Amino acid sequence: MHRIVVHEVGLRDGLQMEERVVPLETKLEWIRRVAGTGVDLVQVGSFVHPGKVPQMADTDRLFTELDSERSKPKGPTLSALVLNEKGLERGLACGVELFCMGVSASETHSKKNTGMSVTEATDRIVAIAGEAERAGSKVQVSVQSAFGCGYEGVVPPERVLAIVERYLNAGLQNISLADTAGHASPDQVERLYGRILKIDETVDLACHFHNTYGLALANCYAALRVGVRSFESSIGGLGGCPFTRIAGGNVATEDLVHMLHRMGLRTEVDLPALLHLAEDVAEFFGRDLPGTVYKTGAIPETPGA
Amino acid sequence: MHRIVVHEVGLRDGLQMEERVVPLETKLEWIRRVAGTGVDLVQVGSFVHPGKVPQMADTDRLFTELDSERSKPKGPTLSALVLNEKGLERGLACGVELFCMGVSASETHSKKNTGMSVTEATDRIVAIAGEAERAGSKVQVSVQSAFGCGYEGVVPPERVLAIVERYLNAGLQNISLADTAGHASPDQVERLYGRILKIDETVDLACHFHNTYGLALANCYAALRVGVRSFESSIGGLGGCPFTRIAGGNVATEDLVHMLHRMGLRTEVDLPALLHLAEDVAEFFGRDLPGTVYKTGAIPETPGA
Repeated sequence: MHRIVVHEVGLRDGLQMEERVVPLETKLEWIRRVAGTGVDLVQVGSFVHPGKVPQMADTDRLFTELDSERSKPKGPTLSALVLNEKGLERGLACGVELFCMGVSASETHSKKNTGMSVTEATDRIVAIAGEAERAGSKVQVSVQSAFGCGYEGVVPPERVLAIVERYLNAGLQNISLADTAGHASPDQVERLYGRILKIDETVDLACHFHNTYGLALANCYAALRVGVRSFESSIGGLGGCPFTRIAGGNVATEDLVHMLHRMGLRTEVDLPALLHLAEDVAEFFGRDLPGTVYKTGAIPETPGA
Repeated sequence: MHRIVVHEVGLRDGLQMEERVVPLETKLEWIRRVAGTGVDLVQVGSFVHPGKVPQMADTDRLFTELDSERSKPKGPTLSALVLNEKGLERGLACGVELFCMGVSASETHSKKNTGMSVTEATDRIVAIAGEAERAGSKVQVSVQSAFGCGYEGVVPPERVLAIVERYLNAGLQNISLADTAGHASPDQVERLYGRILKIDETVDLACHFHNTYGLALANCYAALRVGVRSFESSIGGLGGCPFTRIAGGNVATEDLVHMLHRMGLRTEVDLPALLHLAEDVAEFFGRDLPGTVYKTGAIPETPGA
């Protein structure tokens, strides 16, 4: 079986919904702690206009700080979301290791999120992805609203596959499907990824599920079953796209890792440290987060011990 | 594909943890409303000593009341949990249609729950099940703590299969596995049910998952995939066994039905009515229940309409 990887996106997707701006030092502490648990990728932030999402204004500085302390050879890959050429320039200047970028399969969501049609946005993203690759960077491209849209409802799989084929034709092999609205059901997950794998069985697949309707872990299991390799999740289950109709948090990293551990996968990832971090993030925001296992504790290996 | 059935157990498993005793009239209203949604089975209560679980003291009266009004030919099957001969007598006297009874696969849980070893408890249940069948009743036998135990941790599958084989040898073909402690993971669910189906592919399988660690819907999906037919769930996600270590609620009926609907299954079950009932049950107890979809609303077929 291929190696399963965990991509912590709470610092980006998790925080963009939060009004309380997290200070740079706190972000650095959270990133260092996540990095120390053994997850494989950490999304540090996004390169958007600081006026639009103030929570992301310090992304360049975070990378610069983190870059200066990366003496140990085996930390996680540090990723960032980019939306346009300007973002790519900023990211190339400060040491981003993996550029994540995407297109929505829903016209309404695409317009609200980017001001562009799906076709325009796809042209733009394919161009930026090419630039990033020519600059020697790793790239992950995504399809947002891939399983349904809060505005449009059903998103026909053909629309998702059309974007995926454009990516594949451009040589982009690292592809994530995002369930922005939380509409995915596990059978749909198996079918849609299955269709992609029929087009190209060598594609490197990632998934990004929101738990709006409680289905995120079921969808992760379905994705795992069908051959998805990379799982995007958010500490404590923070998150939700500000440009969707009902914003539900991402699948909680610690709940995902807990499930993987129960399945004998990635058991070296430090779950107690993730649970502790989720507690601290909840304390920072002064409220319960959507995650489950940081409240119950993990299932004990030897109860009563 | 075999027909999927939903068994509402909130009136029994859901209420036995609640301190506030639900009046008979309220229970009747909830049962009638659940029955009206089109779920297939409703567990009305259990026949335990009224001093031990006061919440269940009116089970006989509930059946008598419900029996008197069953003029319509196609209501759900009314089930009850029985623990001993005395309970069976009471149930036979008041019109129980399906007797549910079970044994824990964990020695510690069995002792705490019944005062008996697993072997003693199995002898007892096989005998009572035989009596119920000879009296012309339908019977479902279960294995509790089938996926792990809050006291003992891992429960080897061989212990579960040994109980299942005793059931099968006694001609008991309607078998439920209960994840009392919420320890199940979806791969484990597929494996364990798969092993039972290898022993006897004609067995009629049910599942009963608690959402203690957030895995209940993922486990339902895994069970569905492997061929489980009957799903036990609790309105609002009420519940939890009082004799386990951490009591987590059952999978919420409305969240389960919502997932099934997303998969195109049992779409005739009245989800809005289930959501409304969950709201009313939450209001009765004066707190949020664990269920998700009664808070968010179902995914709209035509958003904005």
